[in-house]
Amino acid sequence: MSIDARIADLGITLPAPAAPVASYVPAVEVNGTLYISGQLPFREDGSIVTGRLGQDVDLAAGVDAAKRCGIMLIAQIKAALGGDLSRVERIVKLGAFVSSTADFTDQAKVANGASELMQAVFGEAGRHARSAVATPVLPLGAAVEIDAIVAVRPL
Amino acid sequence: MSIDARIADLGITLPAPAAPVASYVPAVEVNGTLYISGQLPFREDGSIVTGRLGQDVDLAAGVDAAKRCGIMLIAQIKAALGGDLSRVERIVKLGAFVSSTADFTDQAKVANGASELMQAVFGEAGRHARSAVATPVLPLGAAVEIDAIVAVRPL
Amino acid sequence: MSIDARIADLGITLPAPAAPVASYVPAVEVNGTLYISGQLPFREDGSIVTGRLGQDVDLAAGVDAAKRCGIMLIAQIKAALGGDLSRVERIVKLGAFVSSTADFTDQAKVANGASELMQAVFGEAGRHARSAVATPVLPLGAAVEIDAIVAVRPL
Repeated sequence: MSIDARIADLGITLPAPAAPVASYVPAVEVNGTLYISGQLPFREDGSIVTGRLGQDVDLAAGVDAAKRCGIMLIAQIKAALGGDLSRVERIVKLGAFVSSTADFTDQAKVANGASELMQAVFGEAGRHARSAVATPVLPLGAAVEIDAIVAVRPL
Repeated sequence: MSIDARIADLGITLPAPAAPVASYVPAVEVNGTLYISGQLPFREDGSIVTGRLGQDVDLAAGVDAAKRCGIMLIAQIKAALGGDLSRVERIVKLGAFVSSTADFTDQAKVANGASELMQAVFGEAGRHARSAVATPVLPLGAAVEIDAIVAVRPL
Repeated sequence: MSIDARIADLGITLPAPAAPVASYVPAVEVNGTLYISGQLPFREDGSIVTGRLGQDVDLAAGVDAAKRCGIMLIAQIKAALGGDLSRVERIVKLGAFVSSTADFTDQAKVANGASELMQAVFGEAGRHARSAVATPVLPLGAAVEIDAIVAVRPL
């Protein structure tokens, strides 16, 4: 099954890749490595999941927000690879930042929303290294931000 | 125009590269990739821009602090490349950490101070991927810290 | 002296590599670069050093926690390299996250606990780039989390 078929099979429709909220680019490919900018958790209507874990975003909503970051990461990867997700050799590393109160310690569970998506979509190639940490707040008030490093096959 | 000429044209004088505030090195080059340690916003007199966005550092001062981090990143890149900035193939990724109160959400605008500098100095090669997040505080009380990944041409 | 001998000489016994606390893998090697997931400060009894710098973890305990993260990083590197630490070409970059109150500004000193370990163990090859920032809290309440990028020699 192709990656695109697996994405459809998971009931996921890739959104239009979000434009950067500032003066940078969503992805840079160099020497077989693709760096994807930190992605925010966009809803289908283009709004962002905002709030803070431990306060106004519960664990399930946090996991869902992380999955939304992951979906946007995949949309950015696809756009950067000219639409060809079969060029993904390996999801190498995710960097997850979770907006958290000082007593919320389940950042790892939240980030799993993106990690499990990567493995569901890319299989063995989706098994990645990761760091997951808390932040007091994130750009635009987002609940989660995740960036990625991806190894890609040459054209 | 050479990169050095463009820097002069922008009215920027590169400072002496700051010594690490601890036991590590400012830059490591390996296999064509240069990793620059997190840089703080130094003023011309060697002091650091301290404080927190949303509290005692306003947006304009935050943007300026991020630009100062960017200037120090370029100074470190130049030192790591033996003075030859023409070896910069691409500014690949910036990681921006903005000292913020819990209700300040313009980390992306702050980080633009460094991002716009990179594009002004390096042109197309300065267009980078980025993550920008908040931190409750930073080393030495700095307002912003930014690290970088740079692709470099072989000697 | 071999790296293993140097580790023993430093009085360090590498622990069993910690299992990820979530759905990801501890290390990914691709194109000569090894990415190690964020590691927490495990004690010999398997418990984690928890708390926050500036509150209930003093500087010395923070430095020790960072060293424990460093020991676990080395244990993960060794496991990822099939037990052969001589394949380490360079510790390239450490990313240190220090759980901190809003007025604690010695994240760099804390992170030195890991940085000095890397230089003691790997010598010149242990001299790395680094970023060190604060977080309001970390997964499982850990005091410090550190991830790593390592250049490795081919098999």
